[in-house]
Amino acid sequence: MKERIMETSILLFAKKGFKETSIQDIADELNVTKGTFYYYFKSKEEVLLDIHRSYIEHLVENQETILRADELSCAEKLYEMIFKLIYDIKKEGLRAKVFFREMRHLSDNHLLSIVPKRDQFKMNLQDLIEAGIKAGEFRGDLPADIVTLGILGITNWSYFWFQPSGERSSQEVAAIFYNMLVDGLQLKGE
Amino acid sequence: MKERIMETSILLFAKKGFKETSIQDIADELNVTKGTFYYYFKSKEEVLLDIHRSYIEHLVENQETILRADELSCAEKLYEMIFKLIYDIKKEGLRAKVFFREMRHLSDNHLLSIVPKRDQFKMNLQDLIEAGIKAGEFRGDLPADIVTLGILGITNWSYFWFQPSGERSSQEVAAIFYNMLVDGLQLKGE
Repeated sequence: MKERIMETSILLFAKKGFKETSIQDIADELNVTKGTFYYYFKSKEEVLLDIHRSYIEHLVENQETILRADELSCAEKLYEMIFKLIYDIKKEGLRAKVFFREMRHLSDNHLLSIVPKRDQFKMNLQDLIEAGIKAGEFRGDLPADIVTLGILGITNWSYFWFQPSGERSSQEVAAIFYNMLVDGLQLKGE
Repeated sequence: MKERIMETSILLFAKKGFKETSIQDIADELNVTKGTFYYYFKSKEEVLLDIHRSYIEHLVENQETILRADELSCAEKLYEMIFKLIYDIKKEGLRAKVFFREMRHLSDNHLLSIVPKRDQFKMNLQDLIEAGIKAGEFRGDLPADIVTLGILGITNWSYFWFQPSGERSSQEVAAIFYNMLVDGLQLKGE
């Protein structure tokens, strides 16, 4: 039931917004009483926190699986990370929408419990960029922290426009971004 | 007074959120009556629309000034566009915050009146990428539309993390992104 409450809340928060959704709405949608809701969650905010936590933990797990893949170069790992984030929009679209859009409704206390995981997500990518610089794959004259924020911008922003049902697949979009980032836009002399 | 109502609304929407701000709050902050508010605006939504419209028009004007600068190469114009967007966070921080965060509170009708300007903003950047390909400055094997969305991701996302008071200036951050985008992350052989 806990999982069903979360799934239903994601649907309603995505459709109506967090503020505009009541616990009664969630209970009605599930055909249960508010008592059932309160058996699993203290408040609507706690559901939002759980949605957030499970989403960011899922992203971090994906990253760490990629980081551990010793057979891949740093550049290949970068492709995999970009691909996984864009592919996720297809698989986890509504969850991602609620994650990005409703973040500001988390209380300060709740936000504090999420921030370390978000920092870890950023640091995993930054570690990869730094490892690539050390390995001589990436240039060392661009600061890894700003490069990381640039890459996160590309992938995070794609939540606002990427249509999984559109003409380009997650693989194609990831490959375009990877090529732009690694090889650059400049036309190379032959 | 119209401009003061907009400025005050930006402050309140940024601080409390659009939904959580009442017309009474705006009037109180300005020491005027609600009647004064209604003399200039039909509703709170209309203020939000005006904030949106003026912000996107400002961005498009900046772009078009850059596009008309015939003495610049396409790559130089790209740098200028990235710089201007990041510099704007310093100058127009709260307006940008309200623009991004409260967009979903625009009614469908209001949104429709904004969409052409947002499309124009995107198309101006895409036109520049296409002109760069045509001029032989940028490679032609990456689709200009997806490249454009990637660049917009980098600049738009910077609203969520760039601290104008932080250790790096708008110029530095813009130069890092420009170098990453144009030359790529890959270490080049000597």
